[in-house]
Amino acid sequence: MKARIRITLKNGVLDPQGKAIQHALGGLGFAGVEDVRQGKYIEVKLNETDEAKAKDAIEKMCKDLLANTVIENYSYELVA
Amino acid sequence: MKARIRITLKNGVLDPQGKAIQHALGGLGFAGVEDVRQGKYIEVKLNETDEAKAKDAIEKMCKDLLANTVIENYSYELVA
Repeated sequence: MKARIRITLKNGVLDPQGKAIQHALGGLGFAGVEDVRQGKYIEVKLNETDEAKAKDAIEKMCKDLLANTVIENYSYELVA
Repeated sequence: MKARIRITLKNGVLDPQGKAIQHALGGLGFAGVEDVRQGKYIEVKLNETDEAKAKDAIEKMCKDLLANTVIENYSYELVA
């Protein structure tokens, strides 16, 4: 079972990487880019077939290691 | 219209960040983690309501700036 985890900065937290990308896109001639936010994407392959157990494990991984929940949100989906 | 872009290293390209996360998860007692790959997640908010045009723009952004297509894959979904 594989988890696709997205970790993003919370709204209101300054995102200089996103701003840099937005600026670069403007410089390349892309018009109409209103906002860019950059986050992390992590794929975790688990040796676990039970969806509920996998979900528990991923939830705990996000809280303990992957995301800084003070300034970051996380979301994930499980795929077989 | 918002695009959620995931950029990942191609299979076979060494991913030291992913390996470091895998090692750290093992150290925290998470068993059964077979593989971890880290990539980038970028949200781009576009001032564009036409889905086909938004798709063209995002595709071009990925190729021109966001992803290094020699070693990275990208995928995205558009949300209203």
